[in-house]
Amino acid sequence: MTLPLREDLRGKTAYGAPQLEVAVRLNTNENSYPVPPGVVASIVAAVSEQAPALNRYPDREFTALREALAGYLAPAAGRRIEASEIWAGNGSNEVLQHIFQAFGGPGRPALGFTPAYSMHPIIASVTATPWIDGVRGVETTSGERSFDLDAAQAVDQVRAHDPALVFLVSPNNPTGTALDLEVVRAVLEEARTRSCMVVVDEAYAEFARRGTPSALTLLTDAAGADRLIVSRTMSKAFALAGARVGYLAARPEVGEALRLVRLPYHLSALTQAAAVAALGHAEELLSTVEAIKAQRDRIVQVLPTLGLSPVPSDANFVLFGGLPDEKVAWQGLLARGVLIRDVGIRHHLRVTAGTASETAAFLDAMAEVVGMAGMAEVAGQPQPSTDAGPSMRAAARSGT
Amino acid sequence: MTLPLREDLRGKTAYGAPQLEVAVRLNTNENSYPVPPGVVASIVAAVSEQAPALNRYPDREFTALREALAGYLAPAAGRRIEASEIWAGNGSNEVLQHIFQAFGGPGRPALGFTPAYSMHPIIASVTATPWIDGVRGVETTSGERSFDLDAAQAVDQVRAHDPALVFLVSPNNPTGTALDLEVVRAVLEEARTRSCMVVVDEAYAEFARRGTPSALTLLTDAAGADRLIVSRTMSKAFALAGARVGYLAARPEVGEALRLVRLPYHLSALTQAAAVAALGHAEELLSTVEAIKAQRDRIVQVLPTLGLSPVPSDANFVLFGGLPDEKVAWQGLLARGVLIRDVGIRHHLRVTAGTASETAAFLDAMAEVVGMAGMAEVAGQPQPSTDAGPSMRAAARSGT
Repeated sequence: MTLPLREDLRGKTAYGAPQLEVAVRLNTNENSYPVPPGVVASIVAAVSEQAPALNRYPDREFTALREALAGYLAPAAGRRIEASEIWAGNGSNEVLQHIFQAFGGPGRPALGFTPAYSMHPIIASVTATPWIDGVRGVETTSGERSFDLDAAQAVDQVRAHDPALVFLVSPNNPTGTALDLEVVRAVLEEARTRSCMVVVDEAYAEFARRGTPSALTLLTDAAGADRLIVSRTMSKAFALAGARVGYLAARPEVGEALRLVRLPYHLSALTQAAAVAALGHAEELLSTVEAIKAQRDRIVQVLPTLGLSPVPSDANFVLFGGLPDEKVAWQGLLARGVLIRDVGIRHHLRVTAGTASETAAFLDAMAEVVGMAGMAEVAGQPQPSTDAGPSMRAAARSGT
Repeated sequence: MTLPLREDLRGKTAYGAPQLEVAVRLNTNENSYPVPPGVVASIVAAVSEQAPALNRYPDREFTALREALAGYLAPAAGRRIEASEIWAGNGSNEVLQHIFQAFGGPGRPALGFTPAYSMHPIIASVTATPWIDGVRGVETTSGERSFDLDAAQAVDQVRAHDPALVFLVSPNNPTGTALDLEVVRAVLEEARTRSCMVVVDEAYAEFARRGTPSALTLLTDAAGADRLIVSRTMSKAFALAGARVGYLAARPEVGEALRLVRLPYHLSALTQAAAVAALGHAEELLSTVEAIKAQRDRIVQVLPTLGLSPVPSDANFVLFGGLPDEKVAWQGLLARGVLIRDVGIRHHLRVTAGTASETAAFLDAMAEVVGMAGMAEVAGQPQPSTDAGPSMRAAARSGT
């Protein structure tokens, strides 16, 4: 490119998973269930009401939306949440960008624990924020990998790098596991002694296994609570990825700071209306969550019978290892009409938990791919006994 | 604020015109005409079609929208435009932010000619781009002010500052006048010898007086055409401020650069559907433009009878001078139920051209405010003869 582009962008390629026309799309952790007719009707009614007045700018303060989101979060927080504690944007990516713009920027590094949400370092780059690729878990010499982040490992890195922003992801993407709340507490405790904000990215919180508390519960009285930002999205459990609504909860001062960097009127009247309408049907929209969790648990249960190693998951996806060549496996699945995600971790792929039939299609295709010559062989891992073949295919096909 | 905010944001206040519940709102250059029922029906139908699939991410490439925008721009460009030459965002502010993020940033200054669109330096600040407040027109010792930018004045400043980005606004906001195309040509000619992109912000292009050509006509063969970006919006002539759709035309390489900084899926499925539906009714939506231009011309014609000095306008608003104290006048109008804009230029205010009755309400209120003791007195300007009072009020009230 001959254009006078920013130096650090030159030679880069645009981020984005392939948007391919494939029968089974399990690559972007979408919710596979269409929006139910009753919710569609409410969204359409809300848009009909707003459309004649689209000549006017939308409510810059998106007050009704903040109130609706505050109401939705209250149970997870265990208390009433005020609209002043809520901020929202066009997808959680925009909310995260606002955070980078207000608290990051040149000379103000952000720290994440890799592998984590791949957009964090990209938004850092776009906002000219130095990014520090912190470490999560351990890799053994035999090639096995743990992705757990414990409090000491996190706090040590905060001390070592003294960042302006720390990103914790819980449940973590792409590994799937939720963070122990003690890790968040420990990082907050450390952050309050520094010029440091702590973001807990809870995009997948609604899929967590029973008993996993949200970092929202720390917003009132934890030490360093004024440094805490908990981000969420309507793209996953709410099945509204196409509407682009992300949000966060934090002390009202955080929203005041974000107002300094948001583009005025960043949320359209249509977005505000559609999101408020959908939040009025929260229970109905979230009714798919249990079905999706069942499919996730099924994937975690079946993959070992194929000689693969799933990571325990609190999200609507499963990361699994044990692939001799993840690129070959990804192509093999695509050739069978199943699109999943290569997240750049050697021997691993990530699959979204969709409907029962999508899961069956994935497990069937995976069984075929694993059955290809040499596919089940991977350094340091035992090959599944060949007589497991028929039964594991039956398991893969079952709709449970 | 005790939060560890970016140093240069500390003590700032959030940008945004007051959103007040006032009978006559002429402060943000909205289109005063509601969206017609036929267009509303098309928008609602498009949303109804999309809503069930909102569980999926939107088309990241917003192909249908780019095609519709390309078709709309063709007449102004005088040729067929390809979808690959179009980029869009949530309002032209986001499109401008993408430009700053790709071509500006730390150490890559942007130059504008003040007074111009007030968001340019704000987006510069948010994206950590140094902003250079260039000069436009001249101020005489008697306090009179010209806002015209000529080619030599513009090129001299590009040479002096060697910026990475230059912003030209045509028609200019808040002054209202369109730029001679020779100025754009001259700046492009200079930019091609440097590492410099040239943005022509044409948010108000559809309101230009007859015969004013668009900078779109320069995209094919002007010297330096590969450095040219022409930005537009659906917020003004299209009466869709609430839908937040801005866009630009440039060589395809520019879109490739902007894909490196845009957040993936930045345009929701609802935004894409609504905008495409509205573009299908372009003629109907733009039918208000002539009526608005008539009100603008009426304001320019009547204000001198009140002893005020309007700047000739190609936009849907009028900047006018001759106010001894613009803050007092602004308050006086607000007290009469008319909200207009204090754009920070001494002795001046800016008013949007709305409907005939809104214009009448503004001119009536303005006549009253001017009639207040001392209001018509301003340094170097003659006071209107007092017997002009009744006739100017009649003129102000007329609906033409």
